Amino acid sequence: MNKGKILIVGLGPGPEKWLTPEASAALAIATDIIGYIPYVERLSDRQGQTKHATDNRVEIDRARHALDLAQQGHVVAVVSGGDPGVFAMAAAVFEAVDAGSDADKAIDIQVLPGISAMQAAAARLGAPLGHDFCAISLSDNLKPWDVIVRRLKAAAEGDFVIALYNPASKTRPQPIYDAFALLCSLKTPSTPVAFARAIGRPDERIVLTTLGEADPSTADMSTLVMIGSSETRFIERPGQEPWLYTPRHYRVQR
Amino acid sequence: MNKGKILIVGLGPGPEKWLTPEASAALAIATDIIGYIPYVERLSDRQGQTKHATDNRVEIDRARHALDLAQQGHVVAVVSGGDPGVFAMAAAVFEAVDAGSDADKAIDIQVLPGISAMQAAAARLGAPLGHDFCAISLSDNLKPWDVIVRRLKAAAEGDFVIALYNPASKTRPQPIYDAFALLCSLKTPSTPVAFARAIGRPDERIVLTTLGEADPSTADMSTLVMIGSSETRFIERPGQEPWLYTPRHYRVQR
Repeated sequence: MNKGKILIVGLGPGPEKWLTPEASAALAIATDIIGYIPYVERLSDRQGQTKHATDNRVEIDRARHALDLAQQGHVVAVVSGGDPGVFAMAAAVFEAVDAGSDADKAIDIQVLPGISAMQAAAARLGAPLGHDFCAISLSDNLKPWDVIVRRLKAAAEGDFVIALYNPASKTRPQPIYDAFALLCSLKTPSTPVAFARAIGRPDERIVLTTLGEADPSTADMSTLVMIGSSETRFIERPGQEPWLYTPRHYRVQR
Repeated sequence: MNKGKILIVGLGPGPEKWLTPEASAALAIATDIIGYIPYVERLSDRQGQTKHATDNRVEIDRARHALDLAQQGHVVAVVSGGDPGVFAMAAAVFEAVDAGSDADKAIDIQVLPGISAMQAAAARLGAPLGHDFCAISLSDNLKPWDVIVRRLKAAAEGDFVIALYNPASKTRPQPIYDAFALLCSLKTPSTPVAFARAIGRPDERIVLTTLGEADPSTADMSTLVMIGSSETRFIERPGQEPWLYTPRHYRVQR
């Protein structure tokens, strides 16, 4: 019987302290590691284990490769930063399964969740995700920009806290500018905003501001952008950065 | 100098495999553990450590207690199931800080993120959170029901995948019925729905259905309800439960 399987592993935001025991165990037993170059390079080499590091934007090829190796009996760890279920490799693997054969659909696949960027950012900032929120990817590689506009408008209409993933990249600097222009027309200028870059890594950087004052160029591809609801607020602290949080209660609309 | 501090610790959905090393370390050094009875009881007793288990709905008293103990020099672990930053104790602690004194605002507070219920559910189901999503608590203990209605409408308008927390409790069985009635009027009956109960625990139970067929009474207080976007779909598998996932791409609106 074929013992091949696929473990879709969440590496979390970076530091070991946020890697679950389940994910550690999976990395130890895998015969093959597949993933985007920086995630694969982050992992130490292990005897008898083959690393397959590939470039960004080839997620579906990577998923197909994992299915093929699993069918050959390999134990394949497909690694993602953060949570593989949130804007990451799990959806790509299931797209490949959906498009694949009955044999692909019979493969043993397990998704191992991880701490996602918005959770690390929230923890570092205070408790901005303490109430209803939404998560939106600003990447328009795979969806039309008008879908993003529709969702930003709905997020403002629902007065959700908004976590923006993939706000900008070198080849795609514009989305965060357009998103902020739209949100500025829909939400109060005093709405708290946080740019949370590379949380938990040595190059971590946090900028706290408001929607009216925010400079979209602060965001890069390693940044999670958090935008408050009408209830989200700063707590000023003498001699320290303010906390940012969203209360659990919701007052009558101001 | 006062060495007291507060660690707001995410225990994840239950099993040890999802408890981060950071959270484990915090539980080992704490002098005091504060939390809702079932979460505190889940933890093994440690010499020199005092457990303070309290009932639900007293989150703000619990937070105040933690601040007082920290000011007396205690190292206090405030524990939450899942991620303390998502509909849990972190917001309650910062509410108490916000309402508190300058001394409260100076306390060393660290939030330790954890795997939240929607992530465990998503991992178990496939990849339903692979695209833009929102998380909404159906508890109307702390917010008016019309805010929940506004958010459900916005979530449907934005065609987000929806993760519903706190869908029902013994004293509050109605919200999930009202939410489904509203969503049925706004979304296609064939929209995939999953009831994911107690994921990772011995009493785990999953029900896969559609919005048109869903029985709201399937949800209890341990259930995370996942409702698809127009793109979310099942992958049928011979002899096994189907996978549920949301592709990363978004096709032109049907």
